[in-house]
Amino acid sequence: MSSNRDIDALIDMMAKLPGLGPRSARRAVLHMIRKKTLVLHPLTELLQAVALNVRECVNCGNLGSGAVCDICASEKRANGELCVVEDVADLWAMERSGVFRGRYHVLGGTLSALDAVGPEELRIPRLIERVSSEGITEVILALNATVDGQTTAHYIADQLDGHVRLTSLAQGVPIGGELDYLDDGTISAALKARKAV
Amino acid sequence: MSSNRDIDALIDMMAKLPGLGPRSARRAVLHMIRKKTLVLHPLTELLQAVALNVRECVNCGNLGSGAVCDICASEKRANGELCVVEDVADLWAMERSGVFRGRYHVLGGTLSALDAVGPEELRIPRLIERVSSEGITEVILALNATVDGQTTAHYIADQLDGHVRLTSLAQGVPIGGELDYLDDGTISAALKARKAV
Repeated sequence: MSSNRDIDALIDMMAKLPGLGPRSARRAVLHMIRKKTLVLHPLTELLQAVALNVRECVNCGNLGSGAVCDICASEKRANGELCVVEDVADLWAMERSGVFRGRYHVLGGTLSALDAVGPEELRIPRLIERVSSEGITEVILALNATVDGQTTAHYIADQLDGHVRLTSLAQGVPIGGELDYLDDGTISAALKARKAV
Repeated sequence: MSSNRDIDALIDMMAKLPGLGPRSARRAVLHMIRKKTLVLHPLTELLQAVALNVRECVNCGNLGSGAVCDICASEKRANGELCVVEDVADLWAMERSGVFRGRYHVLGGTLSALDAVGPEELRIPRLIERVSSEGITEVILALNATVDGQTTAHYIADQLDGHVRLTSLAQGVPIGGELDYLDDGTISAALKARKAV
């Protein structure tokens, strides 16, 4: 396409990243080639650094540079609250909100009979271990409000029932949300969970 | 954000690429970290290869691995036709159509009084040189149908007038286009250039 093997291979590789397609990959690659010193070289170095340094925390599944991630290593985060998320992206989203000050447990997916994903594949045994060994008082199930996410939440709740306080994120109208644009399920959940003003 | 300096720097860098934002950069970076062997390592190697091997053709401004690009090096492409484009991305778009068999000349932008881009910044002197030295019989002005593109086309046409046959891409209804969705300018251009069936 570009009459150069390396450029074509790079475009193909970039186009396979989530959120990119052939067109945006071409634009990104051209931009990188035009700005070799400002973009291409620093980007290559960062990819090398990430490949070399970043690994999964053995404790919670978060990404970090040591065997144990910064959150697990920090004593300040040991407040007895443990937030269970599906994915590192969900952990980052929680951290961006800046409200939660406890620790996390990244499952690495959701239970799925179809894809043969059982509890063993999901770091669930490690979760049960942590609840007793780390003196956890509350487990917050921050799983996605999808069928698979809720199935997984129910399974974990069953496993931990009686051992610890279990909570889940509130469901309702998102901040800035307009009723007219919300689905029936969200409105119905918000109505059921209505509170006194 | 991710509590890791390298990951944050990589996300910031990726988010600045055209077509990506913070959200898609986060998704792409997580995908790369999850697939270190399949994505992260090959991508790093390709970026290194491109940084090392790819450079601008001294003749036409296309990207390639030698001092002169494959198209300029190929005798088959010396059919006397020279297609003038703004950008390497436009050259790639022309090549994808697979119809043009001549050579290209990449201007590297358009004339712009506001941004102080004059003919010297745009490889226009080199174009005039090539027209006489390469035995060019037709110059096809394939510049974008924008104000800047058309200003540049007029300037080049002035410079080359009388030396060579000058053409430009036809304007009209795009293939698959619906009249109802086309702007007035396109419909008016298509009507003026109407042809017998």
